[in-house]
Amino acid sequence: MQERAVRTREVILRAAAEVFDEFGFSGASISKIMKRAGVTQGGMYFHFPSKEALARAVMVEQGEGLRLPPGEDGLERLVDITLYLAEELQSNPTLRAGVRLAAEQGEFGVQDDSAYRLWAEQFGGQLRAAQEKGELLPEVNVEELAWVLVSTYTGTQLFSQISTGRADLHQRVVSLWRYLLPGVATPAVRQHLDVAVRRKRAAA
Amino acid sequence: MQERAVRTREVILRAAAEVFDEFGFSGASISKIMKRAGVTQGGMYFHFPSKEALARAVMVEQGEGLRLPPGEDGLERLVDITLYLAEELQSNPTLRAGVRLAAEQGEFGVQDDSAYRLWAEQFGGQLRAAQEKGELLPEVNVEELAWVLVSTYTGTQLFSQISTGRADLHQRVVSLWRYLLPGVATPAVRQHLDVAVRRKRAAA
Repeated sequence: MQERAVRTREVILRAAAEVFDEFGFSGASISKIMKRAGVTQGGMYFHFPSKEALARAVMVEQGEGLRLPPGEDGLERLVDITLYLAEELQSNPTLRAGVRLAAEQGEFGVQDDSAYRLWAEQFGGQLRAAQEKGELLPEVNVEELAWVLVSTYTGTQLFSQISTGRADLHQRVVSLWRYLLPGVATPAVRQHLDVAVRRKRAAA
Repeated sequence: MQERAVRTREVILRAAAEVFDEFGFSGASISKIMKRAGVTQGGMYFHFPSKEALARAVMVEQGEGLRLPPGEDGLERLVDITLYLAEELQSNPTLRAGVRLAAEQGEFGVQDDSAYRLWAEQFGGQLRAAQEKGELLPEVNVEELAWVLVSTYTGTQLFSQISTGRADLHQRVVSLWRYLLPGVATPAVRQHLDVAVRRKRAAA
C-alpha cells in the first residue's frame, strides 16, 4: 500500500514537471496535471494540496533521478557534473521544470532557495574532495566558492535559455570554467583538466 | 506637445516599474499602473497597447536614468559599475523591476534577451578599454567574457534575491570578482584592484 502511494507520488511529480516545463506555473493547472498523470482528484489531493505545493516539490526534487557521471570526487568530477547538467537541461523534464520554477518563483509569490542550497551542497562536496586532494588554490574558501558556482551556473543557464533555448549551454559552461578555473585550481590541475575536457570532447 | 508625450511616457514607465517591482507581471494590471501614473486610458494606450508591451519596455529600459560611477573606462570602472548596480538593486524600482521581469519572463510567455545584450555591450565596452590599457590577460576573449559577466552577475543577483532579498548582494559580487579576476586581469592590475576596493570600502 505504501509502495503504491510512493509510486503514485512519483507519477504525479513527473506529470507535473512535464506540464510546468511546457506551460510554466501560471499556464499549468491541477486538472491538466491530473489528466497527464492519470490520477483521480482524491489521489492528487492526498499527495499535493495545491498547485503551489506541486511546484515546490518539483523545484526541490529537480535533481532526483539524475545519474551523475561516475568518477572520483574532486574538480574533474565537478566539471563533468556541470557539463552533464547542461545536457540534461536539454531533455530532462524534471530538471528543466525545477530550474525554470526556481528562477521564475517570484512570479507566483514564492521565495524558497532550497533548490539552490541543495546544489551548493552537491558542488561543495566535490570542492571539499578537491581541497583534500590538493587541487584547489590555498586562498579558495570552499563554502563561498560553492555559492559562487551555483550563482554563476544559474545565470549561465538562464541567459542561454532566453537567448538560444539552451542550444549553446554546453559552450557557455565551458566558457564559464575558462574564466573561473584560474582563480580556483592549481596550475597543474588546470592543465590536466584542459587535456581531460579536450579528450572527452574528441570522444563524444 | 511632443515633449509632453515624452514626459507622459516616462511617468507611465516609472509607475509600471513600481507596480511590476511590487507585484510581478501577473499581479500587476494596466488599471493599477494607470492609477499610479495618474494618466487616462487614452494616454496609456497611446504609449503602450498592452501589459506585455509595458513589461518589455521596463525590461529593455531598466538601465535608463542610472548614474554609472565616473572614472576612466577599464577594469576598475567595470568593478565599480557592478558594485554600484548591487546598491541600485536595493532601491531603484526601474532597475529592480527590469531585472525581475527579465528573469521571470518565461512565466508570461516572453523570450527576449535584449536587456541582457545591452548589459553585455556595456560590460564589453569597459573590457575593450581594459584590453587597450593592457589590463587583461592575453588569453581573454572580450566578447566571450562580456557574456560570462552578464550571466554570472544575473545568477548572483537572482540567488541573492531569493536567499536574502538581496541583503548580501554586495558581498556576493565581491566574492564573484574574487574568483573571476585571476582568469581575467594581469597580476599587477589584480593587486591594484584589491587595494582600490579596500580603500573604497574603508571610505564608505
